[in-house]
This record gives sequence, C-alpha cells and structure tokens, in this order.
Amino acid sequence: MTAAPLRLGIAGLGTVGAGVIKIVQRHGALLAARTGRDITISAISARNRNKDRGVSLDAFAWEDDPVALARRPDVDVFVELIGGTHGPAKAATEAAIATGKDVVTANKAMLAIHGQKLAEAAEAKGSLIRFEAAVAGGIPIVKALTEGLAGNRITRVMGVMNGTCNYILTRMENEGLPYAEVFDAAARLGYLEADPKLDVGGIDAGHKLALLAAVAFGTQVNFDAIALEGIERISIEDIEHAADMGYRIKLLGVAQMTARGLEQRMSPCLVPASSPLGQLEGATNMVVLEGDSAGQIVLRGAGAGEGPTASAVLSDIIDIARGTRIATFGQPARTLTQTPAAHTSVPAPYYLRMRLLDKPGALAKIATVLGAEGISIDRMRQYGHDDAAAPVLIVTHKCMRSALDLAIAGMTATGVLAQAPVALRIEAV
Amino acid sequence: MTAAPLRLGIAGLGTVGAGVIKIVQRHGALLAARTGRDITISAISARNRNKDRGVSLDAFAWEDDPVALARRPDVDVFVELIGGTHGPAKAATEAAIATGKDVVTANKAMLAIHGQKLAEAAEAKGSLIRFEAAVAGGIPIVKALTEGLAGNRITRVMGVMNGTCNYILTRMENEGLPYAEVFDAAARLGYLEADPKLDVGGIDAGHKLALLAAVAFGTQVNFDAIALEGIERISIEDIEHAADMGYRIKLLGVAQMTARGLEQRMSPCLVPASSPLGQLEGATNMVVLEGDSAGQIVLRGAGAGEGPTASAVLSDIIDIARGTRIATFGQPARTLTQTPAAHTSVPAPYYLRMRLLDKPGALAKIATVLGAEGISIDRMRQYGHDDAAAPVLIVTHKCMRSALDLAIAGMTATGVLAQAPVALRIEAV
Repeated sequence: MTAAPLRLGIAGLGTVGAGVIKIVQRHGALLAARTGRDITISAISARNRNKDRGVSLDAFAWEDDPVALARRPDVDVFVELIGGTHGPAKAATEAAIATGKDVVTANKAMLAIHGQKLAEAAEAKGSLIRFEAAVAGGIPIVKALTEGLAGNRITRVMGVMNGTCNYILTRMENEGLPYAEVFDAAARLGYLEADPKLDVGGIDAGHKLALLAAVAFGTQVNFDAIALEGIERISIEDIEHAADMGYRIKLLGVAQMTARGLEQRMSPCLVPASSPLGQLEGATNMVVLEGDSAGQIVLRGAGAGEGPTASAVLSDIIDIARGTRIATFGQPARTLTQTPAAHTSVPAPYYLRMRLLDKPGALAKIATVLGAEGISIDRMRQYGHDDAAAPVLIVTHKCMRSALDLAIAGMTATGVLAQAPVALRIEAV
Repeated sequence: MTAAPLRLGIAGLGTVGAGVIKIVQRHGALLAARTGRDITISAISARNRNKDRGVSLDAFAWEDDPVALARRPDVDVFVELIGGTHGPAKAATEAAIATGKDVVTANKAMLAIHGQKLAEAAEAKGSLIRFEAAVAGGIPIVKALTEGLAGNRITRVMGVMNGTCNYILTRMENEGLPYAEVFDAAARLGYLEADPKLDVGGIDAGHKLALLAAVAFGTQVNFDAIALEGIERISIEDIEHAADMGYRIKLLGVAQMTARGLEQRMSPCLVPASSPLGQLEGATNMVVLEGDSAGQIVLRGAGAGEGPTASAVLSDIIDIARGTRIATFGQPARTLTQTPAAHTSVPAPYYLRMRLLDKPGALAKIATVLGAEGISIDRMRQYGHDDAAAPVLIVTHKCMRSALDLAIAGMTATGVLAQAPVALRIEAV
C-alpha cells in the first residue's frame, strides 16, 4: 500500500462492534484491494474490558473513556457503536468532531435527536458523520437515497424498518397467537430493546424514518413531527379481519412531501397482502423509494444482527478510506430546510375496530358521528358476542386523519363504546 | 456555487440521452445543492440533428462526430449513450479517456467485451469509467455492490435483468399464450432490440451479469465464459408444468465463486413461485446479492426506460461532481484476477421435457441412459397424446450439468426422441 492506513477507534463492543473487528481482521486483503490502503484498528473502548467477545483485542490500545478514544491522535475515524441518545455516545462523537475526525455511527436515536447540530459541527470542522448502519441494518439504503437516486426528486419513502415488530406481527398471523404471548417470546429470544417501548412503540423505527426523510427531502431531521403509533393495541382479531379483506398489518413508516409540508408517520397499517411489503416475513426489513425519474425502487434485507449491521458500518469506513466525502444528510447541513410538518394531508381509507355496548341505537349513533364528520362507510360488520359488548368492524372510504380523530372523539363521547376504537390506515403501496 | 461547474458532453440522444438532458434542465438547483456545483451540458452529438426529442437543444454546441465531442476542451465528463460493442461508442470512449476525461456510459455490450482494456486505459490516465445505467436500469446495483457491500466477500449474485424476457414469460403464464404470439406482441410494442436475439437469446442479460460478476468477485469481466441460454424454446407447457410444481420460469443470471472457479450462467430456470424472484412480474428487474456479512440483499425496480436509466446515468455524474473516485470495477483494473471459468460445479435438480416416439421400451431407454450417468429421477410423467410422440416430463434429483449434458446426448443417440429435450435448472433462491 502506498497510501497511509486508515486508523479506526471503535467505541462500544457489543455484537456490532465485535462484528466490525471480525470483518477488519478477516478481510484485510480484500479491503486493501478495494480501497487502496490498509484499514487498521488503533484503539477500542467498552464498558466491560474483560467480557469474552469471541475476538482477540490484544493488538488494540484500550481506553476506558470513549471521549479519550475519540481524541486519540492515532485515530482517523471514530466508530461510535455505544448507542443512546445522549451520554457517552454524544460526548465522544462531539470530541471526535472537535478534533477533526470523521465519525461512523449506527446510532439512530442520537442522530434523530441531535443530527442537525452534530452535522453542522462536523461540517464546520471539515469532518463527516456517516450512518448507513443506523437504518435498516445491512441494506445500503442511505447510500441508495443520497447517491444512487441523487438525480431524483424523491416523492415518497416508506418501509418496514423494525424487525422485531414485523416478527411479532408475522408470528401472530402465522400461528394465530395473541400479541402478549408473542411479545413474551420475543423478549425471551432477546429480540426486544431493554426498553421494549422503543420497538413496539414504533420509536426505533421512527428514528430511522426521521433520518431517511431528512436525506430524501433535504429537510432538517425532525423526529418530533412524526405521527407515531406502536403495535401494542393490535389484536389477533385485527390481523384476521385484515387477512379476510386481503391485507396484512405492518408497522409502516411513510415520509412524503405534500403541498402542506412534510408528512411523516410511523404506524401499523393495512397493506395489500400481495404487495412486496405485505409479503415481508419475520425480522426482515424492506424500504421502498419513489423518485420522479427512477420510479419505485424496493430494497430488502436483514434489518439487524451482527453481520448485516457491521457490513453497513464497513461500507461507511470504506467510503472514507476511498476519499468519498458526502455531507451527512446528502447536502450541507446548513442548506437543509425546516419544512412544516403536515399530518393530515394525504387521505386514506381506514379500518376501525371497536366494541359497542349492547344498547338500542348504539350502531346508529356511531354511524351518525362518522357521517357528521363527512366520513362515509365502505363496509360495516357487527359480530355475534357473548358478553355485554359487540365487536364492530368498519372500513371507511378515503378520509382525512384529522376528521377521523374528531369522529373517534365524538364516538367516545356517545358513551356506547366499551373501549377506544383501534384505527388503522389502509395504505396503497 | 464556488466550485467550477461540471461540464457534460452527451453522445447519443435516444430516450436515455433525452432523459438525461431533461433531468439536468429540470433539477439544476437540486443537483447543485447535492453536489456543491452546477452541472451543465456543453455539447451534444447524435446521428440525426433534426429529430424532435421533446427537449430544447439550442443551448448546446453540436458535434456530428462523437469522437470530436469526446475531445472537446469544454467537456469534463463524456456521457456515452450511443450503444454498440464497437464502432463510434468505443472510439469516442477511447478518445475521451485519451484526453483525460471521465466517462459515464450505459453501454453494457461495450464494457462486457472491452471493459478490462478500457478500464486499464482510463486508470493509466487517472480517468474513471462509470456504468450504473448499464445494469438493471434505475436500480443502483453497481453502487450497492462496489460500495454498499464492499465490506463483504460476495458469495453469489443473481437476478432477472432483462425486462423484455420477463415480460414475455409473465404474459405467457398469465394469459396462457404461446411464445411466438407474445414475442410478436413485444416486437409491436417496441420492447425488443433491433436484433431480438440480444434479448430473447439472453445476450443482453449476459452482458449485465458479466459486469456484475467482475465487480462482485474482483475478476476480469469474462462474458465469453457465461453458460448462455435464451428463452426461445420455452413453451406454454413448460410454464404450466412448472406452475403445477410450484415454480415459475425466469431468465435467471447467476454468478457464483466456487472452489473450481467462477461459475456464470444465464438461462431460463425454475424458481419457487413464492420467492421474490418467482413473484417478479412484467418488465421489472430484480437482483439478489449475497454477502458473507450482509446476508441476502434484494433490489427491485424498473430495468429500462427513459427515467430509470437516466436516473442511473445521473447517479454516476453526481458521484463525479462530488469528487467520488472509485475504480471502474471497484478496484484497480490491473488487480482484477483472471479466474478460471467453472461451468458444472454447482449441482441442481433439473426439469426435462421431451417428446418420446411411440416405440416399445422407449421410456426405459431414457431412464437407463439417465441412470448410466448417475442421475436419479425424482418424478417422471408421460402424458396422453394424439400424434406419434408422447410428451414426457422428468424432474431429476440434484446432478451436475455436465452429467446431464452427457445424458441428453445419450438419449438423443437412442433414437427414441422426436426432438432434443428442453432442460431447465431448478434454482434454489
């Protein structure tokens, strides 16, 4: 090699960190052939120095403090695999930027909240922050958007980006099991984050959507603007009703530029069972990109795990080794726009499930409230029941979510519902 | 813009060339925001100056000769959209390289045959040749392989990469129409190349496979080593038999590194109807990448057409505008290996359809020949018939293609066949 080696400092040695070390050790010759230089590891940092990670760490300097690691003069690229929105991940990222280093991170939470400020700080120093591993694991989706489709005005980005939720929904459907039982199984298998709300509440997937939206539309990342719903209220009955109508329920993220502003939503939706998104099984991720020239591009792959996530981290490292310099969000952070958030601009049909108290005129009251909000009913069905409340299923014609929310408030006020309705968007994909 | 503009010279103004001009004109601000510089068109060249292409050419200098265009001092990037293996496309590409310009091309035929020499010449001058548009239209597949999965040892690449063939096969299946009728319809719709053999003979798809294999495995592009079969002999009966067994027939390209060398094949195969490849309808393309860390990544999108192909051309132009410099085949051309071609190293089950003359012992002779080559039969079925030859369908257990070819020669020698058998690989995907 004639060029100087690219020297990594890796903070965080969980499965992904260990995976990155393994690739660097196993594929040294391959990486050198592809980048024209050696990629080496100078130093590492983690909470527990003595844990067996299935990989020898003897050749690397050790730092207890990731901030000290980020500042080391023998580190060119700081690889942040600690995780967490604030705390040491952010402190070390800032330290790396302050000392002019490039940063490669898998930390969707940190970037979804602090991405704009961090990107601006990096650019002021001529540094890069790269985050291919933060979204959809091994799928090179950030690269596809920022580079592969860079000649397009992107019209819509959508995807299933939380493998755990898709695993839960798929298993509920395939085995007819209730949510709680599959949730417990996922917990036992270690599929859930320490705070499971991050997964099943849609927050983790929402972080990813916020990053993709920023890249797709040239807007400042705006996680707080996402209309966010989790899968906790999805019942096996919802899944069965959806299947009867030719749909499957997916935790679907959609980001779409509309005349009113940027609409971002992450919520369980009904999608056609025969569509690529509908057919997605288990922990796999799928992202659909729509560009004004390219049309629809679909990418599918493993959304998590040691190998796929480490592969994405390496992709960013290789880009840096090759001298590729692309701004964090595809264009300079100071040129990213602050676009108003639109929540209710794209109408859709909705699926509504509720339990109606056994009172005369109850169904008429519900229908009247919907009609008063201008929402017309495509189908309605009341099921037989043994207890005091009757399951009722309604599919509306296309309506605005804002009107639906008013109708739901109105239905609740009538006092004929045993519980708040479940409302799921039916998404044309 | 502080940086100098990137000045294009575009040779070839068919649908793709016109599409590139439209994007540059429509998305000037977007491209400048994303690359930090203006992208402009200095000069153009085509065979017919006066044809209406739905786009104003007044602002650009005109060259009758693409070689003169390629040499112009006001051109930084030569965009080759002429097509053809030799002739003006190659001459102009060589002229651009000789004068130190970068080249962006959609020309799979030229690169599949001359790619190694052209890449070496470009590297000697510090120039780049980029060809995202040459493979799978708008799908950023070259980028996914050379950059997104660059941390992986690639184990297999496969895909459906000729939209016309997939259109023909899908329509035969969905409408029960014979090959000849759908072929004629495709010709009327303008879906076929001037020489239809390029499409239905698998040559166009083979060119694409050869390019992907070079990039995936770090080998010199070797189109001649592809085991190439077209779809001309696929009958509606084959499609129906395959469907009965849960398969669909696709013109499938597979490149795979084996212990014996690099195996490349482009041929009609049976793939599971429920697999992503099996579900691919119409003119859409799909490429499946398998990496040792990333696992399986599937990309799907439009494989041809003005917008998608122009989108891919722009992706290469934008990379150059941003200063991204990656060798033509992902690593320096002189480091690409000449790997032996392996044709028969991966065994598979095969589907065999033949017409057996109505002679005593005919079926026994066929079975005996297969057994003599060590090929065991999974299922065999003889159909009722009105004429002198009986349709026979055989599915073998896994065997080597070399053994099967010997068996086919042996069967033909028995004199009991009315015509040479159709043999289709059953691919696990």
